[in-house]
Amino acid sequence: MSDFPKSVSICEEGPREGFQSEPKMVPTADKIRLIEALAETGVQEINCVSFVNPKRVPQMADAEAVAAGIRKRPGVHYTGTILNAAGFERARKTPLDCLPLLFLSASETFGIRNSNKNRTEALAEQQELLSLYQAAGFTPRDGYVFTAFGCAYESDIAPSTAVHAVSELLELFKGLPVPRIVLCDTVGWAHPLSVERLVGSLRERWPELRLGLHLHDTRGLGIANAMAGLRLGVDHFDSSCGGLGGCPFAGNAAAAGNIATEELVQMCEEMGISTGIDLERLIECVALAEEIVGHSLPSKVAHAGSIAARRKRNAQIALSAD
Amino acid sequence: MSDFPKSVSICEEGPREGFQSEPKMVPTADKIRLIEALAETGVQEINCVSFVNPKRVPQMADAEAVAAGIRKRPGVHYTGTILNAAGFERARKTPLDCLPLLFLSASETFGIRNSNKNRTEALAEQQELLSLYQAAGFTPRDGYVFTAFGCAYESDIAPSTAVHAVSELLELFKGLPVPRIVLCDTVGWAHPLSVERLVGSLRERWPELRLGLHLHDTRGLGIANAMAGLRLGVDHFDSSCGGLGGCPFAGNAAAAGNIATEELVQMCEEMGISTGIDLERLIECVALAEEIVGHSLPSKVAHAGSIAARRKRNAQIALSAD
Repeated sequence: MSDFPKSVSICEEGPREGFQSEPKMVPTADKIRLIEALAETGVQEINCVSFVNPKRVPQMADAEAVAAGIRKRPGVHYTGTILNAAGFERARKTPLDCLPLLFLSASETFGIRNSNKNRTEALAEQQELLSLYQAAGFTPRDGYVFTAFGCAYESDIAPSTAVHAVSELLELFKGLPVPRIVLCDTVGWAHPLSVERLVGSLRERWPELRLGLHLHDTRGLGIANAMAGLRLGVDHFDSSCGGLGGCPFAGNAAAAGNIATEELVQMCEEMGISTGIDLERLIECVALAEEIVGHSLPSKVAHAGSIAARRKRNAQIALSAD
Repeated sequence: MSDFPKSVSICEEGPREGFQSEPKMVPTADKIRLIEALAETGVQEINCVSFVNPKRVPQMADAEAVAAGIRKRPGVHYTGTILNAAGFERARKTPLDCLPLLFLSASETFGIRNSNKNRTEALAEQQELLSLYQAAGFTPRDGYVFTAFGCAYESDIAPSTAVHAVSELLELFKGLPVPRIVLCDTVGWAHPLSVERLVGSLRERWPELRLGLHLHDTRGLGIANAMAGLRLGVDHFDSSCGGLGGCPFAGNAAAAGNIATEELVQMCEEMGISTGIDLERLIECVALAEEIVGHSLPSKVAHAGSIAARRKRNAQIALSAD
C-alpha cells in the first residue's frame, strides 16, 4: 500500500461542469455565492466558468460577469475552462487565474464528433494553442486525456491507445516543465481494474509523471475508480460538490456529474490521506448548491452527515455521561 | 490480484430491506410483482420479507401474504429475515425457503440499543435460537456480524473487536458445517481500507472461511467497499436493486439503502467476475421498483444504462455501417 499519496489536491468542478449541465439557468449571483462558499472549505482550486461559445453552452454565457464578481480568498486558484483561442482571449481579460491546458481525446471518433477534427488536426490545433499561450507568456500546467477509458462511440479504449495519447501530449510539452496528466473518464466507462491497468501502464513508462483523474460517476463506479487511482499514487482529482451536474432528477438524464467532492474527501480523510478540505463546510456548500439548483443532488454523505461529525458527537455524549 | 473470486453470489435485499424503509405502504401485490421480476434476472436468492413485529415494522406486516403469493421460479432461493423464535415460527408456516441465521453485533452498545441485550445475553439468545432451529431440523447457513466496521453509538469498531465477534459466532456453530460469515456495515462507516483490514485479519486467522459483505451505502462509499472485499476474495454480497431503501428523496433521510445490485453487477461483470445476473433485466426491475415506490431511486447505472448495452449498440452501428 506504499503507493498511496499522503495528500491529494482537488479541483472543484461544481460551478463549471456542474452548473453547465443544469437545464434551468443559474443566476450569476448564485454562481458567485457558491464559488465564494467553496473557497472557504480549503479547496485549492475552483473551476468557476467555461469560456465556450454561449450558443453551445448558454449556462456559461455570463462567464465574464461571474469572474468579475468573485471576492477572492488568498491561496485559492480561481480558474476557468479554456478550450480554444477564443476562450483564451476571453479568459485573459478576466481576473481569473489563467491556467490553459492542452488536451487530446484517446478516442479519435470522440474527437471528430466533439470538435470535428481527426487526430492529426487535433494535434496541430494543440500545437497552435501552445504557441499562442507561450507568446502570451503562459505555460500550460496540465495535459488532459479525454475518453481515456472508454468512448460513447468507440466503446472500450485499450490502455495502449490511452498511453499513446499521453505520449503525444508529452511530445507537445517537450522542452517545457513536465505537465500533470489528467485522465478523464468522460462517459463513465471505467472500472477499478481498468483504472489500475492504465495508471499502472503510465507509471511503468513514466514513473515520475504526476497523474490526476477526472471521473464521471455516470454508472456509480466513480468513487471506486478514485480509490483505484489512489492505490497507485494518483494525487489529483477533479470533482464536483454534491455530484452537481449529474442529477437524473433534474430532467437531464444524459448529464452525468463528476464524483462528489465530499464523498472523495470523506474517503481520503478516513483513510488518512489529507485533502486540506473542511468536510463539514463542504457539506454546507452542497446544501447551498441544492438550494440554488432547486433539486436534490446525488451525494449521499451530504445527506447522511460525515463519519467525523458522528464520531465527534459520540465523543461529546460519552464525555457528558462521565 | 489472484484473490479475486471468479464468481460471486448475490442476495437481493430490495423487497425486504428496501421496502422496509419506504415511508409509504407498498401493496402486497406490488411486492410480489417485484420479487417475481427479480427472479427472472438470474439472481440466486431474494430476501422477500422480514418476519418481525408488525408494530415495529408495519411495512412487513403482510409477510405471510407476500410469501404465499409468489409464483416461484426453480433454482431461486426465496427467503425471509428471521431474527427470533417468533419470526422462525411464522416463517416455517410459509412456503419460503427457511434459512435461519445466527447473528451478533460487534458493538455491544448497538446490541443493547437495538435489542436490549448485552453481549452475554445476546450470545445466550443465539444459543437458544440455534437449539430451536436444530430441534426443528434446520441448520443455520450464515453468521451475521452487525456493525462490523463502525457503530452509530460506539463510533469506530476495531478489527480485533469484529474478529472477536466472528470467533464467538464460530463457537456457536461448533460441530456444524462452517457458516458463511457476513460482515455488515450497518451504519455506513466502512471505507475501502477498513474493509481490507478486517477481511485481511479474518483471512489470516481462518484462511478458508467464506466471507460475505452486507454494505450500506450511507455515505457513498459502498461500491468502493465492495471492491475492497472482492480484492481479498469476498464472494458473497447482499445488495438492493436500485439502491432501494436509501432514497433521501423519499422524505426518509435516515434510511440508507444497501449498495445497488445493478452497480455491483456492472462492476463485477466488467471486471470478468461472474454474477449470473442479466444486468439489462435487472435495470428493468429498477424501473418497476421506482414505479412501485413512486420516486426515483439513487442507482446511477439504472438511469444511464449499462456499459454492455452501449457496447452492443456501438457494435451494431459499426456493423450496419460496413
